[in-house]
Amino acid sequence: MTIDRTRVDAKKLINFLTNALRRLGVPEEDAQISARVLVATSLRGVDSHGITHPILNIKGLKAGRINPKPQVKVFSHAPSTATMDGDQGLGYVVGYRAMIEAIHRAEKTGAGFITVRNTTSFGAGAYYAMMALEHDMIGMAMTSYATAPDVVAPGSAKPAVGTNPLAVAAPAGKKPPFVLDMATSVVIGSKLLIARREGSSIPVGWAIDKKGKPITDPTKNVSALAARGEGGFLPLGGTPTHGAYKGFGLGVLVEILCGVLSGASAGILMRATTGSSQFFGALRIDSFLPLENFKKSMDEMIEAIEALPTLPGVRKIYVAGGREAEIEKDRKANGIPLDSEVTERLQELAKEAGVKYDL
Amino acid sequence: MTIDRTRVDAKKLINFLTNALRRLGVPEEDAQISARVLVATSLRGVDSHGITHPILNIKGLKAGRINPKPQVKVFSHAPSTATMDGDQGLGYVVGYRAMIEAIHRAEKTGAGFITVRNTTSFGAGAYYAMMALEHDMIGMAMTSYATAPDVVAPGSAKPAVGTNPLAVAAPAGKKPPFVLDMATSVVIGSKLLIARREGSSIPVGWAIDKKGKPITDPTKNVSALAARGEGGFLPLGGTPTHGAYKGFGLGVLVEILCGVLSGASAGILMRATTGSSQFFGALRIDSFLPLENFKKSMDEMIEAIEALPTLPGVRKIYVAGGREAEIEKDRKANGIPLDSEVTERLQELAKEAGVKYDL
Repeated sequence: MTIDRTRVDAKKLINFLTNALRRLGVPEEDAQISARVLVATSLRGVDSHGITHPILNIKGLKAGRINPKPQVKVFSHAPSTATMDGDQGLGYVVGYRAMIEAIHRAEKTGAGFITVRNTTSFGAGAYYAMMALEHDMIGMAMTSYATAPDVVAPGSAKPAVGTNPLAVAAPAGKKPPFVLDMATSVVIGSKLLIARREGSSIPVGWAIDKKGKPITDPTKNVSALAARGEGGFLPLGGTPTHGAYKGFGLGVLVEILCGVLSGASAGILMRATTGSSQFFGALRIDSFLPLENFKKSMDEMIEAIEALPTLPGVRKIYVAGGREAEIEKDRKANGIPLDSEVTERLQELAKEAGVKYDL
Repeated sequence: MTIDRTRVDAKKLINFLTNALRRLGVPEEDAQISARVLVATSLRGVDSHGITHPILNIKGLKAGRINPKPQVKVFSHAPSTATMDGDQGLGYVVGYRAMIEAIHRAEKTGAGFITVRNTTSFGAGAYYAMMALEHDMIGMAMTSYATAPDVVAPGSAKPAVGTNPLAVAAPAGKKPPFVLDMATSVVIGSKLLIARREGSSIPVGWAIDKKGKPITDPTKNVSALAARGEGGFLPLGGTPTHGAYKGFGLGVLVEILCGVLSGASAGILMRATTGSSQFFGALRIDSFLPLENFKKSMDEMIEAIEALPTLPGVRKIYVAGGREAEIEKDRKANGIPLDSEVTERLQELAKEAGVKYDL
């Protein structure tokens, strides 16, 4: 595999993505919000959910499945909570507004929780969870999907939930923030693409076929099998002996907070018209204890974990978000590397959106 | 292994445990609260965290590590949130009061979150999360421990966090509620005791030794090794390839919400005087959507998952809490079975507390 790396400045990418989205009828402000979400995600090393992510949403905008000018509605019956209808808008924009709403409520009451129906794929949950950090809050974001479930229930080979990720962020002092952003399945589809590209076999414990046997052949398309109900990804934990019911329980929890609580539905019921559903939360730290105490204690914990002795071959022990903070530091200074695969996807994106590829 | 099962009525067990705790100076009301927490947990089939659980806490009461008459303090700086100091009281009593406080705040604002320091082991988190159900709320409870960490960080053989369980409960309509109560490690110590008793080897992927190699010998005491920093349990996910950083991230999250946010500290810093730390939450469902809609949608989701085809040898697909609801139905009707091991522990408990064993 040849790697052709060029580095592109974040601002240039923000302009490129803003233009692409504006071209498809997204208002200037919303296009800018979306571009910032995506580039911030790539700065942290997660290109699949960053700068190359909008291809699907751009296709959705062109096909009319995504509304470029949504009338987002907020229904609230209590000071700390609200339900939002995203009017099938871009997930980045709806998610950004929902998190602003959660933060606003947490400023007033200490806690803010927003569940969202009728929205679309929002990229990486970490971005929205991290929006809480500059307000000295703990933030969270999760999503269930409108697409067919692709993660099996323990004891079945038919999918029951999506890969349903959850993200939580908490600020530290001198150390980088804690940022956990995880699918509730063992892996997601993009990991299989890597195996396929490299021709290496899929590890046992990632996915099963319709008979419950491990899928190891990297040419097998697990998502396609899952869509037909003939196997799928395993929930975190993998097998029942190793706690698969825990990962599955977390996946169902995400369905409840996003799909059920928002008034949409759970993914397994496949009401395609409901779109994606999401859940956002914020807790104001100084409504629990003095902020300085929290940040100092976070630093102490993170430093103690990072100071643990490593096993042979392991360079460093990370707390969630630590590795991404290192990547972010490098990419902010030196630009976002565009390898041949990312370049190819961005060129496809430019073509889909009808804008010039000028990176 | 001989199994000598007798069935004992829940009320009789409540009286027995209430008397045992009163004998150690716990006031009548608090002893009753504790006994109800413990028997409710056993009714759902979780004896290790139910009727046999108080042995440790009774030893703590006798040794003066647990305060029988705590002056619990609540510090609040916002309508939805509070920090509680448990004054080293019994975890069951402090946890019960904290959850009442969370529910009370959710009634007013839609959301209530309480973090607790200076408390002790509270048994099963599910009980407190389930307290929200009768108020038509989603409940949650989690705990970190004062004991030495016993779960390793990915890439290290030295423990970084405890088994740090989290529990979430959500009501359904006709179906049993969703109740997830899970350690954030692959397993907890009691699973090893079963392997030891049965002489079967420990599955690869549960625990590692100081060199990072799997512990399979059931006579090995993983908790003792962990206390010396020479191995420990693996976080949910097991290996990095199978998402161990996710289970570890969840374990750290529990440390943050319980230990750091309450002003105690993270377990890895081993400030033994801080005791256990806990975190409780409640979300009022009708502050998001009409309650009937939520319950109907929960029923539909649970029914769809339970209706999934099973793999050979699997009797039924469960949503979290479904199996425990079946056990509860049986035990409520027929009593709680006391096998020889449970009986032995209850006799030990009676002896420790200085009460007559009359079950």
